[in-house]
Amino acid sequence: MDKQVLDKMLRPKSVAIIGASATPGKIGYTVVDNIIKGGYTGKIYPINPTCTEILGLKTYPEIEQVPDEIDSAIITVPAKVMAEVVEECGRKGVKGLIVITSGFSEVGRKDLEDQMLEIAARYGMRILGPNIVGSLSNSDKFNGSFAPGLPFPGKASLVTQSGALLIALDMATYTRRVGFDKLISIGNMADVDFADLIEWFDEDENTTCVSLYIEGMKNGRKFIDAARKSSKPIVALKSGVSAHGAAAAASHTGSLAGAAKIYTSAFKQAGVIQATDLNDLFNRTLTLSQQPPMKGDNLLILSNGGGVGVLATDAAEKYGIPLKFAPADVQEELKKHMPDFGSAKNPVDLTGMAGNDWYYQTTKFSFSHKWTDGLVVLYCETAMTNPQEIAESIKKAVDESGLKDKPITVSFVGGEKSDKAMGWLVENGIPAFGAPDIAVNAMASLRDYARLQEYKNSDHFETDEKAKQMALDVIAKARADNRDSLTEIEAKEVFKAYGMPVTSISLSKTEDEAVALGKKIGFPLVLKIVSPDILHKSDAGGVKVNIKDEAGIREAFQTILKNAKAYKADADIHGVAIQEMAPWGTEVILGSVNDPAFGPTVMFGLGGIFVEVLKDVTFRVTPVSHAQAEEMIGEIKGAPILAGVRGEKPRDKKELAKAIYQYSCMIYDLQDEIKESDANPVLVYEEGTGLKVADARIILKAK
Amino acid sequence: MDKQVLDKMLRPKSVAIIGASATPGKIGYTVVDNIIKGGYTGKIYPINPTCTEILGLKTYPEIEQVPDEIDSAIITVPAKVMAEVVEECGRKGVKGLIVITSGFSEVGRKDLEDQMLEIAARYGMRILGPNIVGSLSNSDKFNGSFAPGLPFPGKASLVTQSGALLIALDMATYTRRVGFDKLISIGNMADVDFADLIEWFDEDENTTCVSLYIEGMKNGRKFIDAARKSSKPIVALKSGVSAHGAAAAASHTGSLAGAAKIYTSAFKQAGVIQATDLNDLFNRTLTLSQQPPMKGDNLLILSNGGGVGVLATDAAEKYGIPLKFAPADVQEELKKHMPDFGSAKNPVDLTGMAGNDWYYQTTKFSFSHKWTDGLVVLYCETAMTNPQEIAESIKKAVDESGLKDKPITVSFVGGEKSDKAMGWLVENGIPAFGAPDIAVNAMASLRDYARLQEYKNSDHFETDEKAKQMALDVIAKARADNRDSLTEIEAKEVFKAYGMPVTSISLSKTEDEAVALGKKIGFPLVLKIVSPDILHKSDAGGVKVNIKDEAGIREAFQTILKNAKAYKADADIHGVAIQEMAPWGTEVILGSVNDPAFGPTVMFGLGGIFVEVLKDVTFRVTPVSHAQAEEMIGEIKGAPILAGVRGEKPRDKKELAKAIYQYSCMIYDLQDEIKESDANPVLVYEEGTGLKVADARIILKAK
Repeated sequence: MDKQVLDKMLRPKSVAIIGASATPGKIGYTVVDNIIKGGYTGKIYPINPTCTEILGLKTYPEIEQVPDEIDSAIITVPAKVMAEVVEECGRKGVKGLIVITSGFSEVGRKDLEDQMLEIAARYGMRILGPNIVGSLSNSDKFNGSFAPGLPFPGKASLVTQSGALLIALDMATYTRRVGFDKLISIGNMADVDFADLIEWFDEDENTTCVSLYIEGMKNGRKFIDAARKSSKPIVALKSGVSAHGAAAAASHTGSLAGAAKIYTSAFKQAGVIQATDLNDLFNRTLTLSQQPPMKGDNLLILSNGGGVGVLATDAAEKYGIPLKFAPADVQEELKKHMPDFGSAKNPVDLTGMAGNDWYYQTTKFSFSHKWTDGLVVLYCETAMTNPQEIAESIKKAVDESGLKDKPITVSFVGGEKSDKAMGWLVENGIPAFGAPDIAVNAMASLRDYARLQEYKNSDHFETDEKAKQMALDVIAKARADNRDSLTEIEAKEVFKAYGMPVTSISLSKTEDEAVALGKKIGFPLVLKIVSPDILHKSDAGGVKVNIKDEAGIREAFQTILKNAKAYKADADIHGVAIQEMAPWGTEVILGSVNDPAFGPTVMFGLGGIFVEVLKDVTFRVTPVSHAQAEEMIGEIKGAPILAGVRGEKPRDKKELAKAIYQYSCMIYDLQDEIKESDANPVLVYEEGTGLKVADARIILKAK
Repeated sequence: MDKQVLDKMLRPKSVAIIGASATPGKIGYTVVDNIIKGGYTGKIYPINPTCTEILGLKTYPEIEQVPDEIDSAIITVPAKVMAEVVEECGRKGVKGLIVITSGFSEVGRKDLEDQMLEIAARYGMRILGPNIVGSLSNSDKFNGSFAPGLPFPGKASLVTQSGALLIALDMATYTRRVGFDKLISIGNMADVDFADLIEWFDEDENTTCVSLYIEGMKNGRKFIDAARKSSKPIVALKSGVSAHGAAAAASHTGSLAGAAKIYTSAFKQAGVIQATDLNDLFNRTLTLSQQPPMKGDNLLILSNGGGVGVLATDAAEKYGIPLKFAPADVQEELKKHMPDFGSAKNPVDLTGMAGNDWYYQTTKFSFSHKWTDGLVVLYCETAMTNPQEIAESIKKAVDESGLKDKPITVSFVGGEKSDKAMGWLVENGIPAFGAPDIAVNAMASLRDYARLQEYKNSDHFETDEKAKQMALDVIAKARADNRDSLTEIEAKEVFKAYGMPVTSISLSKTEDEAVALGKKIGFPLVLKIVSPDILHKSDAGGVKVNIKDEAGIREAFQTILKNAKAYKADADIHGVAIQEMAPWGTEVILGSVNDPAFGPTVMFGLGGIFVEVLKDVTFRVTPVSHAQAEEMIGEIKGAPILAGVRGEKPRDKKELAKAIYQYSCMIYDLQDEIKESDANPVLVYEEGTGLKVADARIILKAK
């Protein structure tokens, strides 16, 4: 990102509209009209070769004739003349181009996009778009778009890949009363992408929360890096998470969607809160733009009705902040503000008798109490109370507490008066929602944000150059042989270079050599054929297990060679591998996949039915930290297996986390070489006794 | 249910308010005021011993002095004088009592509730409540409650266990524009319960959908029966589904919550749609009250923006109606109403260029097309279109199709104009929502409803009297011995009586008898100690497996008896069981639990880690049909195991479904006798070769 360039592009002091029109209904007219109507105080230069004035503004036939500096140019001319126009902008010294025009990569004309980029790069210009609605900024009164008007003002900023959604949401900000400072349409992301804007927003004093609508992205790692560095909460709605939806998204923006599961992992790793749908994006954005993170697990719920209290309690469990009973001193104090049939536990039920004062007293006390990490206040409208007064009581209590680092969310269930009172709360910085579970969900997003902040910084990675070189040497040898995969022996050498314990394995070319190696490794042994032409070794009769003595080695060696020749007469046979037979352990699998958006990712799961039947696996973008590896181990459904079931002792999770870390380093370092790989099975032993990679596979990228 | 009595209670021609007050702010005043303000046209008789007039109405000191018949009495007097008042109502011939007063079972005074019930029963009166807000009916202009006013009119009717929620939702019906005919507060459900009202609503011409807020219920089976018979859609929000929430609900209404999983199963079995939260209850209620069921799986989505189309597609998969591409002829026709860069697949993207006519043409064509089973129309507000005109185009297209048995839902994303247009659509019978996923969720509820209608009628059950008598004889024998559990031999006799294949097992008292029995059963055999004093047979050395010949039987017989005596010298030893050793098969478990709300339920799951680690089990309220049993088998996560994994042949699911059915009959028939039971393991063999119950356990209810 070039901060100054993006400043000039998105918060310009002077703007040209290339393709400005005097004809109402044309986009080139609407953009000029919008900039004027928005109250923009910078200079506006419509560019049009045929007319002299548009909406009272003097026009220029070419941008180079403008007698002033131009920060940002909004371009609406057809794609086919774009190169020429960009060239002119470059010569004029424009900094940022907001390219509204469509007809580029989204319709298969990536060539036009590349041409435009090449010219812009030559002049040091940045491009937003193409194929966008434009860019809007409330704090600059700049509506550089054909969206209807500046959004309802607030502290969040939205970046969206769907222009139609930007227009519709722009208007919805008023009815939903969710305030935004900036709305940016990002379109094809030929140049400026999510990562650039995340970085830029981090220094924008008018933005407290970044809200994203994502269909797909090209450079997922840049996104993760930018998000991880951001000091502001980021909330993202990823669409195209279903199989059919991903196809629809791809045909819509031409971007590769990547696997939904990997986006979810990447968001976690990047510290980004994920929204589940459009309402959730609005609700979470509002909350994260107005409230601080929830730094502990103690959530207190105040209500005047048992029903909403129960619904909120269910939601607390559903969204990952299950309620605990409030401590005795808290209960004792709260009991002073409720009738006998109320409940001071948690959820606190002040009962329908609760009026302004009880709401004020209990909110003030419980918000200030050190036990409370987050407070949700619920109110069911009653005939005896006035929602506005209840809202003011809550606000007064929060203000008087003087606390700025503890969050509160509110829900009022009721009619028009409740809606108005909630609007007032939101205007005063307290997020309020029409259903109790949403207030809890909002609080959960503040809790998630706090958790993810710890998590995202747990990542420290440095390439082990020595390990990498050892691995590259093994790979180079295979490449020299013109092979696109490593033998098991080679693959294990690579795994071993990165520190993973592998079963001892050596290649024997003769029977005597096999015996010597076998004695060195120690019984029992496994003997396996080694041939790049025989991939399915068992099918070829090329594997013999549980060899217990020298005679066994000799017999197995002969049988394996005989079987191999019978299986494929012209097979290139390297010899027979003599392998340590690892004792039984819990089977786990490590694997790697190259995601189109995020590159090399690591997969972890338990072996057998867990992976085959239950698809019980989890992913992370590499490299992962030890803490992330531990989290992976904990989040599979079969996790209790590793903790020890049916009287078994716990497995060595510490060593397993280490192996996941090492494996992730390996596939990260070797991403230019490895197409896919796995360690299957890895046998994990009792706590303190480690693990063994019993089989390993590495397929190389074609070069 | 007594239809006529409930008619008189809830739609009275004359009503008395016992506890009516002349003092504003008192509930007895508010109720009278509400009835008048609501526009009630029946006769109103305030009952108050001290004043002569309330709000212009003549009062009577006692109900018996009213010179007219009274259909319904709304009672607000304190709990302690309730018995007297109910007695007076009975003498007067009142039909229904709406008891607003609290202070009964919810505060531990079930005695007062029982007393009231006993008196009412004597006079044939029914009671709504106590501890309620009252009952409201738009079509009768009857606001017999202290809720603020009649709800926004519509065709749904709501029954809620939370009074505070009724009041709050009453007002919310106006802001949310979800119409209701009746709102009924059901409180402690001392008498009239959900089932009574479901049955009553089925004959109420003003209700097209029944909406329920449930915290807990006492008689779950009555609920299932009533819901199953209902010809109208029922949608239920069950709160207290979390562990902490269940505790909160119990302390709130005093009702036992029962297990959330069992409620979910019971709803399915009853054909009831479950809502996940308050908004979902509103959205689904509106939809089910306005639209017919979706009878097939072909969902078509029309949109003017790729973004909302993708979000809707994701939602379709999430909510169980994944999209398919539209057939070629449909695509061909739709292509006529979009630019080249639009998409006619599904979701259909008419693009931002879509105006009224394209919406009209595509809606009309695709709604009428025989391929389409349900249509979701999405619209992102644009500057070039008018939401109201788009709404009218959609409505016109639907009307002109003349179709009444196919559903449509709509979503407009935009500002105030979109909100107004959606309000207009809803008033005209087309449910419309502010986010695309909600329109899809609404459609999914119509699909679920259609599916559940087929499902709920798949249940046919008749007690097998012969099997039941055989089982009761076995149980009687154990009871005669003063035992509270059956031996394995006895338990298997009960299972066998209900047709389940059990491993052959017989009791031998002598070694020779053991040999004779063993030869009859056939080798290999298992020998087990039989003693009511030795429950953990293996721990006592009382089990020997894989006995292959006569000598083996003799040796095992002696060893077992010796071990048993060593384990417990004074044990009452019945002898040694000689059992067929079943060959290996896939292990499954059947179990039964008595739910506080629903009574005997059957549990099914795979054995081993599936039940121990993954808790991968499913429940049904008994008895289950064969179709339900098949569904249970299909809905566990480990289901693919039974279909055959790792080259194994499929297991005999047909016989397994039969066994689940038989087991469910058994525990349903014997619910007065069996406290808990299980068959663990049941060994399931290859398709066509059945299964065997290898071990069985039955614990009796204390009598």
